Amino acid sequence: MTSSRPETPLLDTVDTPTDLRRLKPEQLRQLSDELRSEMIDAVGSTGGHLGSGLGVVELTVAIHYVFNTPEDRLIWDVGHQAYPHKIITGRRDRIRTLRQGGGLSGFTKRTESEYDPFGAAHSSTSISAALGFAVANKLQDKPGRGIAVIGDGAMSAGMAYEAMNNAEQAGNRLIVILNDNDMSIAPPVGGLSAYLARMVSSSEYLGLRSLASKVARKLSRRVHSGLEKAEEFTRGMVTGGTMFEELGFYYVGPIDGHNLDHLIPVLENVRDSEQGPILVHVVTTKGKGYAPAENSADKYHGVPKFDVVTGEKAKSASGPPAYQNVFGETLAKLAETDERICAITAAMPSGTGVDKFAAAHPTRAFDVGIAEQHGVTFAAGLAAQGMRPFAAIYSTFLQRAYDQVVHDVAIQNLPVRFAIDRAGLVGADGATHAGSFDVTYLASLPNFVVMAAADEAELAHMTYTAAEYDEGPIAFRYPRGNGIGVEIPAQLEKLEIGKGRIVRGDEKGGKVAILSLGTRLEEAKKAADQLEAKGLATTVADMRFAKPLDEDLIRRLAASHDVLVTIEESAIGGLGAHVLTMASDEGLTDGGLKIRTMRLPDLFLDHDDPMKQYDEAGLNAPHIVETVLSALRHNSAGVEEARA
Amino acid sequence: MTSSRPETPLLDTVDTPTDLRRLKPEQLRQLSDELRSEMIDAVGSTGGHLGSGLGVVELTVAIHYVFNTPEDRLIWDVGHQAYPHKIITGRRDRIRTLRQGGGLSGFTKRTESEYDPFGAAHSSTSISAALGFAVANKLQDKPGRGIAVIGDGAMSAGMAYEAMNNAEQAGNRLIVILNDNDMSIAPPVGGLSAYLARMVSSSEYLGLRSLASKVARKLSRRVHSGLEKAEEFTRGMVTGGTMFEELGFYYVGPIDGHNLDHLIPVLENVRDSEQGPILVHVVTTKGKGYAPAENSADKYHGVPKFDVVTGEKAKSASGPPAYQNVFGETLAKLAETDERICAITAAMPSGTGVDKFAAAHPTRAFDVGIAEQHGVTFAAGLAAQGMRPFAAIYSTFLQRAYDQVVHDVAIQNLPVRFAIDRAGLVGADGATHAGSFDVTYLASLPNFVVMAAADEAELAHMTYTAAEYDEGPIAFRYPRGNGIGVEIPAQLEKLEIGKGRIVRGDEKGGKVAILSLGTRLEEAKKAADQLEAKGLATTVADMRFAKPLDEDLIRRLAASHDVLVTIEESAIGGLGAHVLTMASDEGLTDGGLKIRTMRLPDLFLDHDDPMKQYDEAGLNAPHIVETVLSALRHNSAGVEEARA
Repeated sequence: MTSSRPETPLLDTVDTPTDLRRLKPEQLRQLSDELRSEMIDAVGSTGGHLGSGLGVVELTVAIHYVFNTPEDRLIWDVGHQAYPHKIITGRRDRIRTLRQGGGLSGFTKRTESEYDPFGAAHSSTSISAALGFAVANKLQDKPGRGIAVIGDGAMSAGMAYEAMNNAEQAGNRLIVILNDNDMSIAPPVGGLSAYLARMVSSSEYLGLRSLASKVARKLSRRVHSGLEKAEEFTRGMVTGGTMFEELGFYYVGPIDGHNLDHLIPVLENVRDSEQGPILVHVVTTKGKGYAPAENSADKYHGVPKFDVVTGEKAKSASGPPAYQNVFGETLAKLAETDERICAITAAMPSGTGVDKFAAAHPTRAFDVGIAEQHGVTFAAGLAAQGMRPFAAIYSTFLQRAYDQVVHDVAIQNLPVRFAIDRAGLVGADGATHAGSFDVTYLASLPNFVVMAAADEAELAHMTYTAAEYDEGPIAFRYPRGNGIGVEIPAQLEKLEIGKGRIVRGDEKGGKVAILSLGTRLEEAKKAADQLEAKGLATTVADMRFAKPLDEDLIRRLAASHDVLVTIEESAIGGLGAHVLTMASDEGLTDGGLKIRTMRLPDLFLDHDDPMKQYDEAGLNAPHIVETVLSALRHNSAGVEEARA
Repeated sequence: MTSSRPETPLLDTVDTPTDLRRLKPEQLRQLSDELRSEMIDAVGSTGGHLGSGLGVVELTVAIHYVFNTPEDRLIWDVGHQAYPHKIITGRRDRIRTLRQGGGLSGFTKRTESEYDPFGAAHSSTSISAALGFAVANKLQDKPGRGIAVIGDGAMSAGMAYEAMNNAEQAGNRLIVILNDNDMSIAPPVGGLSAYLARMVSSSEYLGLRSLASKVARKLSRRVHSGLEKAEEFTRGMVTGGTMFEELGFYYVGPIDGHNLDHLIPVLENVRDSEQGPILVHVVTTKGKGYAPAENSADKYHGVPKFDVVTGEKAKSASGPPAYQNVFGETLAKLAETDERICAITAAMPSGTGVDKFAAAHPTRAFDVGIAEQHGVTFAAGLAAQGMRPFAAIYSTFLQRAYDQVVHDVAIQNLPVRFAIDRAGLVGADGATHAGSFDVTYLASLPNFVVMAAADEAELAHMTYTAAEYDEGPIAFRYPRGNGIGVEIPAQLEKLEIGKGRIVRGDEKGGKVAILSLGTRLEEAKKAADQLEAKGLATTVADMRFAKPLDEDLIRRLAASHDVLVTIEESAIGGLGAHVLTMASDEGLTDGGLKIRTMRLPDLFLDHDDPMKQYDEAGLNAPHIVETVLSALRHNSAGVEEARA
């Protein structure tokens, strides 16, 4: 493989930005080209985010060339565009380990490099963080700016607006670079995108080339005219940044983000300005410089391994459908006969399967942009007016709307349906995208029903159950990835709220009962096989509901088994905590019943293959078996006895 | 008292908006005056939010007069300005029960009236909800608009921006009324406020009177010119709404919100417009029409009972200091010798005690506005650059920043200190303001330290402990209200992380151990007295930490007592769940140890006196005693035996 790697003679001399800054400006074009080739080659071999990084190759080079990183704190919003940044900040030797177990993260990460002062992965945090750095340096009388690079899609989140509304205090310590590629993960949404589009398509923008040459002339005179010119330049270059100026920024732009002759002098001028904060509006093309990406609809936003020459992507083995599509297709089908069903996504139409719903029912599908807070309360308004809204949001992103879930949905007991994708561990995206906490943070809320699907058929039943449930909020969670291959019945079942099911063994008697929530059920069944082989009669229950608990079932299992083990793809405070609380408060454990809980460990697990992650988490069949055997070895004094 | 009530002959004829709409326009001035008097008199007798309601008396009358409520869905943002609205929507007979147990809520509430289509209490949700109503009606082909009335302070929250960015789809079904009194709870913060101030102080605004007369002339011609005029009016009345127009709104204003001759024709015009969404910018004076409020710095935002004639407020009994002030003063003192300490509040400087800190250290105090998301990530940035930031946020409002807590603070293990005020039940503000969930949603996060103060001295120690803890995120919670009167030592103690303390009895032996987290400790001690009186040796531990748990202490207590009872001012998933999980997984309960958990019930509790709320919650001393006795009555088969 090494032999096919691109020739990168100049890049080979650049390990860190210090090396980069020794180059002459006219060498930066070649460096950028080599950096682009290197990145394409690397992602071709690992898969990952491609289009975003390709769009910021020149911007990456220009920023590190002009600014004094790492003292100037450069923060890439989301961080999935930071692969070129990683290559020139000392991590090139590991760039072909991206998103692999033990390798580089697919996002920025503080523990990886001093050039990553603030990690990311969720959108729209960069301005707040950069402002924190800027103000901290100001207070401590240290040098160093905060520089946030944020995409137009990320600007749709309220958090970015909150930060901009607070930015004025930072003065010239804060620089926000708006990386406007007019396309976040999905097509642009909302008023802001339209506004940016208007600006970009204006005659001022079309005349950019001539403006840029004027800028260059201004810069050469700048030595003499100093501040006044800087002021004139930053405020006057073009009109169009009204909204940003209303929020207290000096607006500069738009600038062609692939033209180093434009970027470098403008960034130098911004660096030397005594005015601030400054917003630099840079226009880039996602996928730039790699034809297959430029020509693809999603610009190779996230890709599997691919052939660099042809752009052909590695086929994933065909198999059971992805959970998100089971949800989207089921909902679309239900909506054929139920006009009240509608679906909300926050910039993740294909990731959540809402694209399938939208294709069939376009007027009832709402992509609110990266705006989970609004999305949830909007859904609450829909529900209050008689609709049956499904808010389809990844577990980790629903955290963004927790207060809306509590205040607008739960307290008012409104029937918003939460389709919670990416529950549990998620593989290559790592800790920032893991869906670890939703059972805990939802099942603690009065009025809420919380379900977890054990397989894709269960997901279909739960989607139907949620549609039919008008009594209050209801959530159902399911993992990233594909189902296990069970058939999805044509006739869906409306599940009884708060009732689990015995999937193996007999609730009337046995040594061990495994109470599973979610897709660990398959591991539970495997463990049961192994326990039975050791002569331990094992019952396996799919609890289906974390809330309300199937208390009757728990009582029956407690009465007829020696050991109860709960298992879930969830942090502490979920099924296990609810079962223990109920059992303990009712006195079910007073007689020496042994209960053990299995859940995600008290760690943020790094990215890896999901199966390996669950091994590390201790939630696979062998761990269940060991948990049971260990419990059985414990004597009544709570001391583990020698193995029988 | 009744004899002193104001004369309200016209208001007496208006029970609902239907009655109101029968009045002639020229009667609305008198009605407004009577409504104002009635409201002042009512709040004088109950206490509550006064200034905000006084500012919208005319607006309330005008909206209900012009629009077809309740079919048109009127949503008051936050809802504390809705007292006049309550008086004219069928609730006047209960207006003197405001915020009292069993009485009217201090906010809007769906269960109270069909005129409250969407409850509130947290800020900035109204536009999202109104958009939900508008879109639902559009989809269902029903009549009815969504009308959101939102203050300028609430506009600083990102959620409002997210909603506005999504509003265009609603067309003329959505109306946003910006109630600009240039003062949210605290002085205005950030770029948006400055922007509004610029607009309001512009020559266009100063010429409002003449403009309004032009509007009136236009309206009279409107019958003939129709849409074209409406368009001209809504877009052209004044320039200045640029930012709102960039987001897709038609901007109308500013309008004097106390002048019914201005309000009524403009709202009628907006109502009849085929264009939309429209943002109506109304300028009001908080506290309007009541001299003591107008002349006070905070415009009587929230007041105790007061004398209507003099404005003199009822004195609260002097007593121990409020928790918030213990925090603020302690932090201010620590910051005298520690330049890294800084404090962040989200529009609650006095509520959190950050005002005390700001007075002493103005450059290190940051009021970010109603922007908890930004505030937390800003704090993370400060921490990453070597500061020691304290984010002082009410428990219920920290929900707004949950994802930032997870993604920016916990995953990165950054030492942000969370001073969590209003933990537990909060009395008159009711369910929306209760701090019920923070222990659950924080203690489930890896890296987090979670403490709860048992009294004001403990709070001071925890503030100091947090300041000195640089290893990662640390939170400490404490209730609304005053301390219990213990002395705060001059020399603060750095608590050992994850260690509780025995406050009564002996860990080496006893019948019962009560494990308390937070200010239920006093009730636990009372319960211990009563149990001892029954001959049951009782140990009381103040656990101090929900995370990390003092596992050694739990093991020792488990080994030497028959019953362990946990108690906390927190929902399921907190201390009790963590103790049970540890005890169960270690096998401590295998031998028949009885554990019972006491916590907030699975209900949203209505506003009431806090002591009564805790009675309803079952968390006072008698409940502890009964829980213990009940556990002791249980036999080993888990069946409660007859009382011995």
